Amino acid sequence: MLRTSHRIALIPGDGIGIPVLEAAMTVAEAAAPGLLEPTGFPWSCEHYLQTGRMMPEDGIETLRGFDAIFLGAVGWPAKVPDAVSLHGLLLPIRKAFVQYANIRPHRLLPGVEGPLRKDGFDILCIRENTEGEYSGAGGRVHQGTGDEVAVETAIFTRTGVERILRFGFEQAMGRRRKLASVTKSNAQKYSMVFWDEVTRDLALEFPEVEVSHYHVDAIAARMVMAPETLDVVVASNLFGDILTDLGAAIQGGLGFAASANIDPTRKGPSMFEPVHGSAPDIADQGIANPIAAIWSLVMMLDHLGEPAVAARIMAAVEATTARGIGTVPGRDSTDQITAAVLAALEE
Amino acid sequence: MLRTSHRIALIPGDGIGIPVLEAAMTVAEAAAPGLLEPTGFPWSCEHYLQTGRMMPEDGIETLRGFDAIFLGAVGWPAKVPDAVSLHGLLLPIRKAFVQYANIRPHRLLPGVEGPLRKDGFDILCIRENTEGEYSGAGGRVHQGTGDEVAVETAIFTRTGVERILRFGFEQAMGRRRKLASVTKSNAQKYSMVFWDEVTRDLALEFPEVEVSHYHVDAIAARMVMAPETLDVVVASNLFGDILTDLGAAIQGGLGFAASANIDPTRKGPSMFEPVHGSAPDIADQGIANPIAAIWSLVMMLDHLGEPAVAARIMAAVEATTARGIGTVPGRDSTDQITAAVLAALEE
Ligand SMILES: CC(C)[C@H](C(=O)O)[C@@H](O)C(=O)O
Ligand SMILES: CC(C)[C@H](C(=O)O)[C@@H](O)C(=O)O
Repeated sequence: MLRTSHRIALIPGDGIGIPVLEAAMTVAEAAAPGLLEPTGFPWSCEHYLQTGRMMPEDGIETLRGFDAIFLGAVGWPAKVPDAVSLHGLLLPIRKAFVQYANIRPHRLLPGVEGPLRKDGFDILCIRENTEGEYSGAGGRVHQGTGDEVAVETAIFTRTGVERILRFGFEQAMGRRRKLASVTKSNAQKYSMVFWDEVTRDLALEFPEVEVSHYHVDAIAARMVMAPETLDVVVASNLFGDILTDLGAAIQGGLGFAASANIDPTRKGPSMFEPVHGSAPDIADQGIANPIAAIWSLVMMLDHLGEPAVAARIMAAVEATTARGIGTVPGRDSTDQITAAVLAALEE
Repeated sequence: MLRTSHRIALIPGDGIGIPVLEAAMTVAEAAAPGLLEPTGFPWSCEHYLQTGRMMPEDGIETLRGFDAIFLGAVGWPAKVPDAVSLHGLLLPIRKAFVQYANIRPHRLLPGVEGPLRKDGFDILCIRENTEGEYSGAGGRVHQGTGDEVAVETAIFTRTGVERILRFGFEQAMGRRRKLASVTKSNAQKYSMVFWDEVTRDLALEFPEVEVSHYHVDAIAARMVMAPETLDVVVASNLFGDILTDLGAAIQGGLGFAASANIDPTRKGPSMFEPVHGSAPDIADQGIANPIAAIWSLVMMLDHLGEPAVAARIMAAVEATTARGIGTVPGRDSTDQITAAVLAALEE
C-alpha cells in the first residue's frame, strides 16, 4: 500500500511538554513507520531567554508549510511571565491559522477512576478559539488609584459564532445528535442573546439534532451531576475554557485531557496539544503522563485522514489503562507508560 | 429575656419559591416564636401578568424599611421572559441595596451522598454581586445580518473589587484563614490583571491569611478533584455564578444550596434566598426540598444577630438529613421534610 507521509511541526515547548511529545512520537513511529515526518522547533521559554522571542519573527510563516502542528506545553512562569509566553506562541498560532474550533473529548478511559461516582459519560466539548471574551479588548483608567476602573470587552461576530456552532452541529450529526449550546443570556443580554439567536437559526438547518440551551452555571453543575446526559457541548472561548477544565477533571485529571485546535476549512495547519501545561514542579521527575499527548496524536492522525492508525493507537492506550498502567497520577513513569502502549500495539 | 423582633420582607415569588418559604417561616416561628415579624409581598410573574410590573414602582422604597428580605424564587419563563422577571425584581434589589457580597456555603450535610467520591470539604464562595461581567454594558450592530457584531463589556471598579476582596479576607479570618482569589489574568489582561493587583494589595493588610491565585478554569477543576483544599473563594460576578452552581452540585444539588446577598455596611436590608429557581416542572408536586430555604433562613438569623437560634435550626436540619430525610431529590415531600425539622427542633 502506498502511503504519503505527513509533515509535522513539532514544538515540545517547556517542562513536561518535552517528554510527553517524545513519547507520543515514539508511539506514532512504532504504529506506522515513516507516516509522520517531523521537524522539531525549540520554541519555548528557554528559547525566549536566549533570543528574546518565543518564536522567530517568521515563525508563523515557517509553520504554514506543515500539514499539522504538534505542541507539548508552553509556559514557565518563574522564568517568563505567562503574558509573554502564551501571547508569544500558543495564542498567536491559534489565531494566525484561524484554528477556530478547540475540541476536547471527555470520557473515562478504561481502568481510570474519576472523582465522580458516575462513570458512563462521553462528552465532546467544542470551544470557540479566536474571539469572544479573550479578544484582548479593554483598558484601564486612574490606574493604581482608588478611582481605578478596568474594562474588558467581549467581542462576538456573526462569522465567529456561526462557524463554531455549525462545526458543533456537524460533529453532533456524527455522534448521538445532541447539542448543548452554552450561554448566560439571562445576565449578558448583548453577546449571549446574540449567541442564542445564532443557535436557533442553525438549528433549523439541522433538524435531526436535538438542541438544548444551557446557562453556563447550570451546565457546569450538570457536568458533575449528570454528565451522561450530554453529548456535544458548544461554548464561547471563556465558557469553553472553564468547561473543558471541568471535563478534564471528571475524566480523571489533566493527564488524560487531549485537544485539537482545528481550522475546519483546512486553509492552514491545525494544532494538537495535551490540555495540561508544562508543570514545572514535576518537570524533572520522569512521571509526566504521556496519555494526553498520545490521545492528541490520535486526534491529529484522524484529522490527517489516517483513521486506521489512529484507532490502533487509541486501542493500545485503552489496553494500557485497562491494565491499570498510567491510571494513577504520578505512580508510573513516562517510560513505563510509553513502553506499555508500545507493547499493546504489538498485540 | 427581652427580645426585639426583626421585620422581614417576605417575597415568596414563583413556583417552588412559595412552599419552601412557607416551610422556612414555619420553622422560624417554632424555633423562636415572634422573633421574626414577616410582611408578605406577592411580587412575582403572576403579579406581572396582572399589573405589568414585577414589583410596584415604589417597591425598593417599601423594602428599605425592613431588617432583611427573604426571597423564595423568581421566574417562570413560559409566562414571562427571564429578562423581564429577573431584571424586574431580583437584580434590582441586589443592586439598589448594594448587596455586594453574594455568599454561598458549600459542604455536604450529614446523610447526603454527593456526586463526588470525596466528602470532606467546606467551602465558602463569595461572589461579587453588583458589577463586573453582569454590568449590562454593551451593544449590537448590523443586527440579524451576516455582519453582526455584539459586544459585552465587563466593568470593574476599585471600589467594587476592593470591598468584595476585603469582605473575603475578613471571612477567611473567621475560618481556616485561606483565601482563593479567582481570575483569568492570562487571557483577560485588563480586568483580571487589575483584580490580581487588588488581591495583592489587600493581602498585605491580612498577613495571617494564606492567599492563592487561581485561574477560573483551574479552580473549577479543583472543586471537583480536591475540594477539601479550598476554604474561602472570592470571585467576580460571572465566575462566582459558575463556581457556586458547581458548589451546589458537589454538595448534592440545588436542594441544599443556600445564599445570602449581603450589604456588609448595613445601610439597607440584606437579602436571603435559596440558590434554586422556581422549578415550574415540579411546582405543583409538593416535593420541593425546603432545606436550601431553611439554611438561607439560618444565614439570615446569623446576620440579624441571632446566632443561638440560627445554630439550633441548623442542628435540626442536620439531624433531619442525618436520618436520611430530605437527602434524595424528589423522594420526601416538602411537608415530610419540614415536619422532620420541626420534630428535631423539639429534641
Ligand atoms: C493557557 C491559556 C491561555 C489557555 C487558554 O485559556 O486558552 C489554556 O487555559 C487552555 O485551555 O488551553
Ligand atoms: C437568575 C440569575 C440572574 C442569577 C444570577 O446569575 O445571579 C442566578 O443564576 C443566581 O446565581 O443567583
